[in-house]
Amino acid sequence: MPIADARADDDAVAPSRVTIADVAARAGVSKGLVSFALNGRAGVSTETRDRILACADELGWTPSLRARSLSIDRSFALGLVIGRSPDVIAADPFFHAFIAGVESEFSTAGQVLVLAAVTPGRQEAVTYRGLASDRRVDGVILSDLRAGDERPALVAELGLAAVTLGRPDTDTPFPAVTIDDGAGIRTAVEHLVELGHRRIAHVAGPATMLHGHRRAEAFRAAMADAGLDGASVIETDFSANAGAEATRRLLDVSTGRRPTAIVYSNDHMALAGLAVAGRAGIPVPADLSITGFDNTELAEYVFPSLTSVATDAAAWGAVAARTLLASIAGEEPDDVELDPPRLVVRESTAVSPN
Amino acid sequence: MPIADARADDDAVAPSRVTIADVAARAGVSKGLVSFALNGRAGVSTETRDRILACADELGWTPSLRARSLSIDRSFALGLVIGRSPDVIAADPFFHAFIAGVESEFSTAGQVLVLAAVTPGRQEAVTYRGLASDRRVDGVILSDLRAGDERPALVAELGLAAVTLGRPDTDTPFPAVTIDDGAGIRTAVEHLVELGHRRIAHVAGPATMLHGHRRAEAFRAAMADAGLDGASVIETDFSANAGAEATRRLLDVSTGRRPTAIVYSNDHMALAGLAVAGRAGIPVPADLSITGFDNTELAEYVFPSLTSVATDAAAWGAVAARTLLASIAGEEPDDVELDPPRLVVRESTAVSPN
Repeated sequence: MPIADARADDDAVAPSRVTIADVAARAGVSKGLVSFALNGRAGVSTETRDRILACADELGWTPSLRARSLSIDRSFALGLVIGRSPDVIAADPFFHAFIAGVESEFSTAGQVLVLAAVTPGRQEAVTYRGLASDRRVDGVILSDLRAGDERPALVAELGLAAVTLGRPDTDTPFPAVTIDDGAGIRTAVEHLVELGHRRIAHVAGPATMLHGHRRAEAFRAAMADAGLDGASVIETDFSANAGAEATRRLLDVSTGRRPTAIVYSNDHMALAGLAVAGRAGIPVPADLSITGFDNTELAEYVFPSLTSVATDAAAWGAVAARTLLASIAGEEPDDVELDPPRLVVRESTAVSPN
Repeated sequence: MPIADARADDDAVAPSRVTIADVAARAGVSKGLVSFALNGRAGVSTETRDRILACADELGWTPSLRARSLSIDRSFALGLVIGRSPDVIAADPFFHAFIAGVESEFSTAGQVLVLAAVTPGRQEAVTYRGLASDRRVDGVILSDLRAGDERPALVAELGLAAVTLGRPDTDTPFPAVTIDDGAGIRTAVEHLVELGHRRIAHVAGPATMLHGHRRAEAFRAAMADAGLDGASVIETDFSANAGAEATRRLLDVSTGRRPTAIVYSNDHMALAGLAVAGRAGIPVPADLSITGFDNTELAEYVFPSLTSVATDAAAWGAVAARTLLASIAGEEPDDVELDPPRLVVRESTAVSPN
């Protein structure tokens, strides 16, 4: 049964509530369009959707969620189970922007976001089973894909809808929302090569996370394409502490000539690296160029300001949310490839000192 | 009906599932203790709780959430409706740590966190009504209390349990989890006064948020107590951009003598202020001392490292979650006053230059 009908039925059996017909009359549009707008379906312009939502708001319309949930076996909730420890999530600005993007779409569609953070390997599968067996959620967003990830198969077996962030290296029946973050790393390397840098190092994320691995591979490939070899890559856990430690190792001249440029896999680590260089008396960018990844708010407000690869995490979250909503509505959405990341050049990169 | 019984009933009608009795046998404890542990009730040691959860995990035990939800009118979900725009949430590290703290408690208790971000005034009341009328959640955490906040009364009218972060200035039937953040600001001012500073400015949050207002009042009071008057306070929206702009105004010597120290109401703004001073050629801490608030991860990893007031947002989230769980379990939890914030002194504060 289409969602629009289910909602109309709901209103029919609860005459004392504000109905979709009331909202339609107020907004001067059809009931069908109101249903579409309230369910976040395609085919409604942003302007019209905003107007309809404003009318619904003014009239005090609320969806009868539980009744709908029982009658059409939908919970009107969608899950994001983040496979990291709460500490790591708290430290990563990417996730906050991503969640904000998801939330903005869900709230427009009358959905709520069920958020669960689970350390990989511990209770992850139990959490998914719990969410599915009681129909707590209709679908999930699978983030931080790992090598040989078993979650797509698990979630499919549980009968949930899903969307993956990036394409798994395992079989998947689900649409993927991808961004070519490797291209972002490549752009950073090419920018540095143009500036004359030849000794360029990479402070990478964990190789067990596909995006951490993909960025490191893109770094190595870009270096090879530029005819530079012996690329130095240090793996970290994405934390500021690990970024600082990796930078200290790279800048330690007792182990050889230090790099003139460092490409970091996130802004947090790049900011910590900037401080390590400052403390060591190595001027950035005169003696050392630095690039970040994610283009978080602070990148613009540090000194020197940080050149960073911008991915628009909020847009990623919004597209993932819309793709999942389309899946649940019975459509078969295609994979979505987001616009490639772009390099925002600021003060932390300059011509190589040698 | 106590929750433990409801859960046992559940298992009785679903004999094919792993039951609480199975978990109890495996862990070598009573069924009652298992129920307590799985529901996150007090009276179970951390060690025992961990052991019981590990056994539940090994056996593949999952709560039958929907059945429980219907039988005892509980949804086993708890809501956090954040009254800020998604952009502002994404930019504030405090919230990430706070949510991580909430999530760690909820996941232990078999609860899921329903997260909704709503810009104040727009659809906030509709969101609360929607969550309550369909029993989507059993209770909510009320954050970012505003002057004359109407949400405690609304939520009480809707029959939800709740806990407030801080004490509202309106009537409330709910327990409050509070921290004396004003004491944190006072500690920062006293530290600077001891270092000989007399011209101290404050970059504050929005006066419409109780905690922004409370910190600014604490600043004025501490200045007055130190015999310093004409305290300069600039109100902001808590963003890095606003922090940078406020710092530029304070350091503009054309408008008078500039301060020798600035107390910021969050770390994000303090880090932006650090960069503004660096860019203007004003050495920190030699010519200007700076303090932050929240002691976020980066505070330790910038140069100079940032003196900051530490509030432990994750602990705050965990205590709020436990208080809410106790309310839902039918207890009448008292207000909880968290340990006062402490000042973490690092490199950004030093003796006044004059």
